[in-house]
Amino acid sequence: MLVPEFEPAEAVLSGGTADIYFVRTVEILRQEGLNPVATMEVFPNHDGILCGMEEVKALLKRVLPEGSSEVWALQEGEPMKTKEVALRITAPYQSYGMYETAIDGILAHSSGWATAARECVEAAGGIPVISFGARHVHPSVAAVMDYAAVVGGCAGCSSVDGARLVGVSPAGTIPHALILIMGDTVKATLAFDKYMPAEVPRVSLVDTFRDEVEESLRVAEALGGKLNSVRLDTPRERGGVTVDLVKEVRARLDLAGFKNVKIFVSCGIDPQRIRDFLESGAPVDGFGVGHYISGARPIDFTADLHQVGGRPIAKRGRIPGITPNPRLKRII
Amino acid sequence: MLVPEFEPAEAVLSGGTADIYFVRTVEILRQEGLNPVATMEVFPNHDGILCGMEEVKALLKRVLPEGSSEVWALQEGEPMKTKEVALRITAPYQSYGMYETAIDGILAHSSGWATAARECVEAAGGIPVISFGARHVHPSVAAVMDYAAVVGGCAGCSSVDGARLVGVSPAGTIPHALILIMGDTVKATLAFDKYMPAEVPRVSLVDTFRDEVEESLRVAEALGGKLNSVRLDTPRERGGVTVDLVKEVRARLDLAGFKNVKIFVSCGIDPQRIRDFLESGAPVDGFGVGHYISGARPIDFTADLHQVGGRPIAKRGRIPGITPNPRLKRII
Amino acid sequence: MLVPEFEPAEAVLSGGTADIYFVRTVEILRQEGLNPVATMEVFPNHDGILCGMEEVKALLKRVLPEGSSEVWALQEGEPMKTKEVALRITAPYQSYGMYETAIDGILAHSSGWATAARECVEAAGGIPVISFGARHVHPSVAAVMDYAAVVGGCAGCSSVDGARLVGVSPAGTIPHALILIMGDTVKATLAFDKYMPAEVPRVSLVDTFRDEVEESLRVAEALGGKLNSVRLDTPRERGGVTVDLVKEVRARLDLAGFKNVKIFVSCGIDPQRIRDFLESGAPVDGFGVGHYISGARPIDFTADLHQVGGRPIAKRGRIPGITPNPRLKRII
Amino acid sequence: MLVPEFEPAEAVLSGGTADIYFVRTVEILRQEGLNPVATMEVFPNHDGILCGMEEVKALLKRVLPEGSSEVWALQEGEPMKTKEVALRITAPYQSYGMYETAIDGILAHSSGWATAARECVEAAGGIPVISFGARHVHPSVAAVMDYAAVVGGCAGCSSVDGARLVGVSPAGTIPHALILIMGDTVKATLAFDKYMPAEVPRVSLVDTFRDEVEESLRVAEALGGKLNSVRLDTPRERGGVTVDLVKEVRARLDLAGFKNVKIFVSCGIDPQRIRDFLESGAPVDGFGVGHYISGARPIDFTADLHQVGGRPIAKRGRIPGITPNPRLKRII
Amino acid sequence: MLVPEFEPAEAVLSGGTADIYFVRTVEILRQEGLNPVATMEVFPNHDGILCGMEEVKALLKRVLPEGSSEVWALQEGEPMKTKEVALRITAPYQSYGMYETAIDGILAHSSGWATAARECVEAAGGIPVISFGARHVHPSVAAVMDYAAVVGGCAGCSSVDGARLVGVSPAGTIPHALILIMGDTVKATLAFDKYMPAEVPRVSLVDTFRDEVEESLRVAEALGGKLNSVRLDTPRERGGVTVDLVKEVRARLDLAGFKNVKIFVSCGIDPQRIRDFLESGAPVDGFGVGHYISGARPIDFTADLHQVGGRPIAKRGRIPGITPNPRLKRII
Amino acid sequence: MLVPEFEPAEAVLSGGTADIYFVRTVEILRQEGLNPVATMEVFPNHDGILCGMEEVKALLKRVLPEGSSEVWALQEGEPMKTKEVALRITAPYQSYGMYETAIDGILAHSSGWATAARECVEAAGGIPVISFGARHVHPSVAAVMDYAAVVGGCAGCSSVDGARLVGVSPAGTIPHALILIMGDTVKATLAFDKYMPAEVPRVSLVDTFRDEVEESLRVAEALGGKLNSVRLDTPRERGGVTVDLVKEVRARLDLAGFKNVKIFVSCGIDPQRIRDFLESGAPVDGFGVGHYISGARPIDFTADLHQVGGRPIAKRGRIPGITPNPRLKRII
Repeated sequence: MLVPEFEPAEAVLSGGTADIYFVRTVEILRQEGLNPVATMEVFPNHDGILCGMEEVKALLKRVLPEGSSEVWALQEGEPMKTKEVALRITAPYQSYGMYETAIDGILAHSSGWATAARECVEAAGGIPVISFGARHVHPSVAAVMDYAAVVGGCAGCSSVDGARLVGVSPAGTIPHALILIMGDTVKATLAFDKYMPAEVPRVSLVDTFRDEVEESLRVAEALGGKLNSVRLDTPRERGGVTVDLVKEVRARLDLAGFKNVKIFVSCGIDPQRIRDFLESGAPVDGFGVGHYISGARPIDFTADLHQVGGRPIAKRGRIPGITPNPRLKRII
Repeated sequence: MLVPEFEPAEAVLSGGTADIYFVRTVEILRQEGLNPVATMEVFPNHDGILCGMEEVKALLKRVLPEGSSEVWALQEGEPMKTKEVALRITAPYQSYGMYETAIDGILAHSSGWATAARECVEAAGGIPVISFGARHVHPSVAAVMDYAAVVGGCAGCSSVDGARLVGVSPAGTIPHALILIMGDTVKATLAFDKYMPAEVPRVSLVDTFRDEVEESLRVAEALGGKLNSVRLDTPRERGGVTVDLVKEVRARLDLAGFKNVKIFVSCGIDPQRIRDFLESGAPVDGFGVGHYISGARPIDFTADLHQVGGRPIAKRGRIPGITPNPRLKRII
Repeated sequence: MLVPEFEPAEAVLSGGTADIYFVRTVEILRQEGLNPVATMEVFPNHDGILCGMEEVKALLKRVLPEGSSEVWALQEGEPMKTKEVALRITAPYQSYGMYETAIDGILAHSSGWATAARECVEAAGGIPVISFGARHVHPSVAAVMDYAAVVGGCAGCSSVDGARLVGVSPAGTIPHALILIMGDTVKATLAFDKYMPAEVPRVSLVDTFRDEVEESLRVAEALGGKLNSVRLDTPRERGGVTVDLVKEVRARLDLAGFKNVKIFVSCGIDPQRIRDFLESGAPVDGFGVGHYISGARPIDFTADLHQVGGRPIAKRGRIPGITPNPRLKRII
Repeated sequence: MLVPEFEPAEAVLSGGTADIYFVRTVEILRQEGLNPVATMEVFPNHDGILCGMEEVKALLKRVLPEGSSEVWALQEGEPMKTKEVALRITAPYQSYGMYETAIDGILAHSSGWATAARECVEAAGGIPVISFGARHVHPSVAAVMDYAAVVGGCAGCSSVDGARLVGVSPAGTIPHALILIMGDTVKATLAFDKYMPAEVPRVSLVDTFRDEVEESLRVAEALGGKLNSVRLDTPRERGGVTVDLVKEVRARLDLAGFKNVKIFVSCGIDPQRIRDFLESGAPVDGFGVGHYISGARPIDFTADLHQVGGRPIAKRGRIPGITPNPRLKRII
Repeated sequence: MLVPEFEPAEAVLSGGTADIYFVRTVEILRQEGLNPVATMEVFPNHDGILCGMEEVKALLKRVLPEGSSEVWALQEGEPMKTKEVALRITAPYQSYGMYETAIDGILAHSSGWATAARECVEAAGGIPVISFGARHVHPSVAAVMDYAAVVGGCAGCSSVDGARLVGVSPAGTIPHALILIMGDTVKATLAFDKYMPAEVPRVSLVDTFRDEVEESLRVAEALGGKLNSVRLDTPRERGGVTVDLVKEVRARLDLAGFKNVKIFVSCGIDPQRIRDFLESGAPVDGFGVGHYISGARPIDFTADLHQVGGRPIAKRGRIPGITPNPRLKRII
Repeated sequence: MLVPEFEPAEAVLSGGTADIYFVRTVEILRQEGLNPVATMEVFPNHDGILCGMEEVKALLKRVLPEGSSEVWALQEGEPMKTKEVALRITAPYQSYGMYETAIDGILAHSSGWATAARECVEAAGGIPVISFGARHVHPSVAAVMDYAAVVGGCAGCSSVDGARLVGVSPAGTIPHALILIMGDTVKATLAFDKYMPAEVPRVSLVDTFRDEVEESLRVAEALGGKLNSVRLDTPRERGGVTVDLVKEVRARLDLAGFKNVKIFVSCGIDPQRIRDFLESGAPVDGFGVGHYISGARPIDFTADLHQVGGRPIAKRGRIPGITPNPRLKRII
């Protein structure tokens, strides 16, 4: 995975996405002529995987005055502990005070996604997990969500821009829609095979019209050696994808001589279900995870001033002065 | 609240935010020369408050061919039931198939926020609830999150662009940062009063340096009749904002003759805590809610084709044909 | 339902099925020349539906001396309460002492089955419940179990002798075995139709090879108006029979014009699942219940002497003398 | 324990105890002239102790054609796992298809009883457990239930025919009835001693009229060295048999010089109560278990065709072909 | 019940039972020459029945200067709510400051006992409850504990001084010790009858040596019409006093013509067990309650200054000034 | 700690604190001329720390006839197990029978307090625990409660007489009352310092008027090196004393150079909260425990006769004769 080039949005730079009181604070300080060097520390309220730091760094690079600024941080993708300082900014306060909202928000949302992805990836052992959840978030964050999922350990993602951001090919199969419009799973799979470039793996979806086992055998026979996988996505209304269904499809494909065709499972997957599949010996070759990752709650971050004009200070409930954290590295 | 003018982003229109397999599906159908009129129905997987429909409508208006298209939907802000059809699109499939990801995502994220906001608002009876959660979401969705919170019933929000979107003034008090930099709550409050326009309500934050009661009395005396409210935001490390603290501040303000100064409570507020405050008789005049609204899980939406070329059809687990819902109104 | 003619087995009459200590007791009393008229009361240890009393009556009629005996009891199929006297025998003790084991056992096992059946029947409202559980009990009690199920309210049963005992036609569909041997559901159903008498309802089993919806439509088309029902028996490995599957089969049969074909559901049915189906609006026309009825735990009965030679007596823990129960009727 | 000579009942052989649809299936196949060699596999739905296989073998020996048949099975009394193949029949289908109900039923009921017995026996360490539950089952299965209890590890049983089946002497004490009729525990015990053969152990029941300790001492003194045990069966109404009661009876018997008199406990015994007694150090010499064993739920067995005419086959949800199980032994 | 004449102990008056810091506080104020009139309010931390106020009043009468003092309070035996002001003292602080420990302690311990007694009395409907718990508290508080139990509603108590304090006869039966020493329940009961004055009710204890039913009948026959009650106190080791034991004793006494002999139940009685007895219809005529009342946790009281020298004041967490409570009555 | 000289109270010696039936028993025996040597064993009904034995010994020394008496017991402060004999008296019954109530009561109440104290002390590791609960018990037992707390391991106590009994200085700080009367924490602390002897440690209470941190710094500066500790007692209404508050006070005192000032925590402390503080690393130097110790439920003791006139005897539910316990030591 590449480190992407993040570019701060105009709405962020202008303060449009900020809480109004930070905008007003900077305005008041400006009028008062107060711009002390201040140290702000940012920490998460839950354990998790840190994500969003690269995007924050790109923002700070744009706004902090060179020379009088210093930024220390944990690295993208590292585990972080509750209340551990993950970011420490020392700079003239007016230069960055207005961006507290954006900094917290980027880290909160991204770390929430990355942490959920990591849980799935750890449950899956070495079996690849693909982020399929773009459809559960607003399109304005679809790409950054898929980026966070990959930071958390996902092997790929389904959104075009997400994949572009992390420098991989987007992953996908055949949607129910294509099969419904073409009227038959085999017909749709053959059309896919006909028009798609060779490097796109042929993954057929086998639960649209007929029994999953029957369809698996039909598409395997129709595509011969070209079929990469079948995807099982049986809806809850039909009992969902069960451990035994995976075993049965595997056994029937093997009996018919299609030992190379893989089985990819999606629909309602989360770490517990991944563990259930693997502990029950279901021969799954890949998991597609949607809501569990993309619908993850953000991990809140809190920013506190700990030093102003070189003097330790803190609000009630916090300890004044720099909080030591040897894991931090200087990033600006 | 105005109905905002939503404008589809270029990344959405170009398919960048789409799941790749929808992009491929449209490509295959184009090559096959297949573009039947198809009916897609979209439904939520949980009960909630519908939000995002105005933004979806703006997108569909841009992409659907006039004349051959028809869209029916529930209205922004309406309650919706699990599996109830909330949106029905009938149009040539190629014109909209690629936008399934974006449509689902806009509705999912926005409805999740609006639903959480509604829960707070209902718990609060008539007492105003302000959305303070911009810092828990990525700045790219901060404004749309605050918009959804207002759709859900919030009286205001803290982000500049969110407030602009809904046509209200952004709401805010004084952050801890200003007080820490100026070194004293009264000094910071007087500076705020000096520079801010008269129409901005004077709301002081009273838990930074000294006891909340002491600070409340100090700022009330310093500002005289101009003080609108005090905000209690005592951190968990100091026991949080308790029912009794609110009562004590109220009693002490009243004893000192400041019966008009209101009390605004924030920090870890959710519907249960709102109910606890109100049932215990705490005289709260406003609630600031952050994570509970902005960190709400999206409410997933699912889109299914139910008719293709005029013929009822469905994948296994769904009923073919139009699903009746008399609550739908035609929007395009 | 007829009242069957029960005939006590030789092993019962001879004391072979008795606890040895009752056999010895009668032997000792005989040698001592003691044969007082004694009153024994029998009560259940749980609430439930009384069953087995007809069989007990047949036994007592064979062994009690006429003239000096009197038996009072609740009626077959009546509800009974914990510790309520359900049977009271007054007769010379030697004539019946040895049969305490058999009397308790007949009532315990039969009432256990009847009570479980009643729970299903009550859950099902007016929808017929058929006892399908002969395969879960030893064949020596298969018929009496099915009899008890019908006493409990079942509309029919699957065992040949059970049906004979209650005077109905045994109920059945087509087993998976016939379909597997004939190789196709439609072929098996047509063969069934060809050889079975007209009065046997044509009920096809539609989950053996293909998708349940597909098979339902195939057999409906093959048999035309002659098809009475389809039976859904989807195994747990495939997610079991879900509420939505029933609705989907109904909708698809209706769309295809087979509104008269009924849907019969089996596999893991119990009162809770019956309620789940009905409360979710699943259009079920009949339930087949196996293990819940036939595997029901017996409801223990306890027999106590309360009077010997006209004198009230009791063991510790019981009240001496006749326990009044106005619901009892004299049966011998 | 002998292996008993089981003899299939006429009602089983004639199909009277069968589910009607198996009878019809054989009839249809006969008319169609279809009688392929088919392999049926039978597995339990829970872990447990296998019982009933000897009775099933006796049935199959009567009905399978020699030469063209083969039967493999686990052994009577062996532990078995959920879904493990416990029986595999390969033979012309018409010869055994009708007996699926009986085979499943024999194994289900017998294994249920044997498994419950094993749980008690394991809880009891080396202390003997006697099956006292004939009174909770229909007399038609009393003997086979006691046989299964002994297969599960019980040291004896109370029913005359059950004991005969396993080749032991039936076990029993003195019932409350004898004591109530004779009016005194000592009198009843002396009468028992007078008439019963010397080899029957003298076990007196000591909770009928007076305090258990007092009665224990009275019968011990009356019978002198001939008293084998006292049985404690205090009813729940009187607080049941407690750990401390056993200790007190033991201490008082010892103090009075009756160290050889054993203590036998019954009434509501199950594995948990056995463990409670033993972990609390109660000096129990034998347990009588009723309902826990005889009222055990059957362990369901399922029979599936896996091969027809030499071809692997299976219904949906099962894997076609022979399921390997190296623990099976050929029994026919 | 009389209102007793409480007399403050010397150790209380001298400050010996006080927390040292109150002694020091009074000393410091004396040296500083500070003795303002101060108002102290005392409230409980749980709902309950107020007790101890008479004793507190006796103390305050001894120490408060007449003329400059005023005391308002709830009444002995009244229900009180959490945080409700139960006592308000306005007087020169030096006169009473040192007694805060004693005042709180008297109210806490006494109200704890009275509240537990009230719970039993309410559970018992009109059936008398006797306080039998002197043996669970230090003898220095045995009398005051029994006094509080009677304030809470008990009909009597077992301690000699407790009964004297409330002006009733102490209640008691025959202890196990007397029976064990005399060797027989009937002998002990007859001795009791021989030496005790006629006005002492004859209540025999019937669980020492023999079965409770047997002993009940024996003492009833021995004393004839003079027997007032039997007491059931069966220890836990023997299953305790069960509902059915009470019913059986009643039935057997009635059958033998002793309908006037009452049944008194003790041993482990608490409100839940009282309700269990009464809801199950056990014919109990009196309950003896020990640990539940005498071992009740004290209900803490807190004392706060709310006015000093006429000025409202309070520590953080409390509201300055007099807390209105219209239920208070002036007692000094 | 000294072993105090306990002196039996007149009310105990005269039988005033006894249950009346023991008084009557001794009277009856006297009239019957019965005074056998009897052995009474006393055991607790829960595990715990034995306390009160010294006071019991002082009582028995006064009443038992020398020569014919023998008393064995566990030692003050030793752990004891449920039902373990803790005290065995062998003496003429009339000499001690009347004191059973007092003996049980002394042991029950004292052991309850000592056991609760021990739980706190064990939770606190080596950090001192002070008994602050005199205000929750009746003043007649305040001293003996504090004595028991010290037997249980407390380092000190707050009541004057309790401290005298155990031979330590009573422990205390400054009450809220002194601060409220003097109007300022610093002023009150200076007055305390001015008048109290040098050996009394200066411990200031810092939560009365202002923020705890602010007050801590103010009193530390005012007293300089003389300040021993600050006490945190923040009321529940203000969130109580939290882990983070302790850390913050510590950090702020250290930053200001007051590393020697200790932190003492009180208000609602129990073993669980002690563990929470220590496991979270809160730098607490001492705990003040009130209700948890002084409001502890008594641990009931039961006394049984096991031998009368040299003959083993017991009531039902107990084993006759001496119960061996090698841990007992002869004390009289």
